[in-house]
Amino acid sequence: MSQGRSPRSHGAVTLADVARHVGLSAQSVSNALNNSTRVAPATLDTILAAIEELGYRPNRSARALRNQRSRLIGVKVEASRDDRAALLLDQFLHALAESARASGCHLILCHADHEAGEIEAYRELLQTTAVDAFVLTSTHRNDARVAALREWGVPFAAFGRSWDGDDALSWVDVDGREGVRLATRHLVDQGRRRIAHLGWPDDSEVGRDRRQGWLDACAGAGLRPGPAQQCIDDFEAGRAATHLLLDAGAPDAVVCSSDTLALGALRALTERGGHVGPGAADVALTGFDNSPTAALVTPGLTSLRQPVAEVARELIGMVDRLLSGTDPSPRHALLIPELVVRGSSTDDPTTPSQKTQESPS
Amino acid sequence: MSQGRSPRSHGAVTLADVARHVGLSAQSVSNALNNSTRVAPATLDTILAAIEELGYRPNRSARALRNQRSRLIGVKVEASRDDRAALLLDQFLHALAESARASGCHLILCHADHEAGEIEAYRELLQTTAVDAFVLTSTHRNDARVAALREWGVPFAAFGRSWDGDDALSWVDVDGREGVRLATRHLVDQGRRRIAHLGWPDDSEVGRDRRQGWLDACAGAGLRPGPAQQCIDDFEAGRAATHLLLDAGAPDAVVCSSDTLALGALRALTERGGHVGPGAADVALTGFDNSPTAALVTPGLTSLRQPVAEVARELIGMVDRLLSGTDPSPRHALLIPELVVRGSSTDDPTTPSQKTQESPS
Repeated sequence: MSQGRSPRSHGAVTLADVARHVGLSAQSVSNALNNSTRVAPATLDTILAAIEELGYRPNRSARALRNQRSRLIGVKVEASRDDRAALLLDQFLHALAESARASGCHLILCHADHEAGEIEAYRELLQTTAVDAFVLTSTHRNDARVAALREWGVPFAAFGRSWDGDDALSWVDVDGREGVRLATRHLVDQGRRRIAHLGWPDDSEVGRDRRQGWLDACAGAGLRPGPAQQCIDDFEAGRAATHLLLDAGAPDAVVCSSDTLALGALRALTERGGHVGPGAADVALTGFDNSPTAALVTPGLTSLRQPVAEVARELIGMVDRLLSGTDPSPRHALLIPELVVRGSSTDDPTTPSQKTQESPS
Repeated sequence: MSQGRSPRSHGAVTLADVARHVGLSAQSVSNALNNSTRVAPATLDTILAAIEELGYRPNRSARALRNQRSRLIGVKVEASRDDRAALLLDQFLHALAESARASGCHLILCHADHEAGEIEAYRELLQTTAVDAFVLTSTHRNDARVAALREWGVPFAAFGRSWDGDDALSWVDVDGREGVRLATRHLVDQGRRRIAHLGWPDDSEVGRDRRQGWLDACAGAGLRPGPAQQCIDDFEAGRAATHLLLDAGAPDAVVCSSDTLALGALRALTERGGHVGPGAADVALTGFDNSPTAALVTPGLTSLRQPVAEVARELIGMVDRLLSGTDPSPRHALLIPELVVRGSSTDDPTTPSQKTQESPS
């Protein structure tokens, strides 16, 4: 683009401007760009030069002829649902869009309802658009998406570690084990001694990792772990599982693997006539993900904030290096979540969120 | 794509496969695609034919030469924030991605923090990607985005009506006035008589429209409207404004213009020692948007669900018609939100959501 006509200081240049500049009709210019095999190479070169000089919006033909990379990054969005607090991936998507733009990339959404559909959706995106790379989310063992993208030779990085210990994968993840250890230690510091756990079934690597943080903190404090229950990440399931936890004993705190489960626990405790909060007669409660709901319920829910902006920056940086080919070696980053303390675990529900930042143990 | 090698039943075809097919080196094929002005048109045609026959992932060059439309639709995402229940635009984005895919389109995200930045972001997207059309959100009077996209000659449709009465705009909107009328009438049916309103300042067209629904329902029931307060769409602002409402009288219900405000009201009522729910001594409460939080708080919050899937389908259909040029006449659709009744306004908080569907009055 020439210095003389920046898009910021001028209105958009039209195809007609380009046509005038090269002395052709707009229709001829359009025809040339839409079917460059039907035009003399010299004419096409003249048109492309005019486009560059005038700062005309590079249409897909012109751009594709000029550039090797579209800098379009594919990322999945699942079907919409309104029954969960866990909207972490929506927050992540906003942060990823912001980081992408700062790096001159753009996100292209890839809709899929389940993982098999996701691979098919990636393939379709590769076949019908100029997508250059992908950001995966929610990695797990034997991840077929990783295998597919490698087979296709498409650059990608993952939000979520390789649970297979695959060092060739570039990933960023959040240390859930350390986060839950911080939350549990906070409860110990508040005088809690019978700390129960409400988490996901063992087929979830993330769920096992988070639960280990609870065990770590109990061991570190010389406490016997309280009762534990496992259920799917669903409000009603968390509510039912909490009734089982309460039947199994009288915990003075419940550490939950998600805000959704913690909100189910809050409902169950209310139904039992119990009270959630910091008092000696209350049950303290912590969640995970610092969902919008955590700040808006009464009492506010103590939770763990995933550093999505930092995750997004790291991932875009990784994809950028893979696309530019400057440094294709895989990178890994494990970030610590931040404990956000609210009325479900402390005396003063109006205290601004207290930040705890530590190195991983 | 030939019938013989569908991408569904085979692995991805490589550039090397294409090169073998046409008897050139992979490097030559790549060079040809990346700079088609340096290759004889006949050779390029042979390569493109091979790509089509083998079902090779059409790289941006090949595709751009073959197709007039990218079918990429730009849509804005704002900066991430975790302090609001109102995540409607996230739910909308999921639904839009699903509808786009069903119509052979894809969404490309456009990050912007504020409206001036949004126009600049659209321009940047037009200049650096193959985006074909836009879907606008959150329209308002004198919307500069509408003017800019028209000036640039880019097709678009809006989630949100033209508040200027501009019939040339294609839009889909949700009838907030009718929704709030339904919510207020529901409260009247529950025996409420002193129904207050908590809404947004008058510079919000959407806010004025929703408040009118409360006035409509009060007039329809022969009730004098209760006290009203206005504040920005923020939890703390809603909490403070509710204290003012309670100082001004003793409403037996509060109709809110958003779930965020309703959750602030819930906090304030709890602080006053009041109780939210269906009992005669309780204050009943309704929100708007049926956010994830509405289902997860205790008691559950009665709210209005915007039909985002239908909004998305309508908008993608409009954009599709604009892109195909089959029917460029502007279209408008005003959809009715659905009242979702929960414990904040009825006796049985465990009752599955009750659906009310009516024609607009």
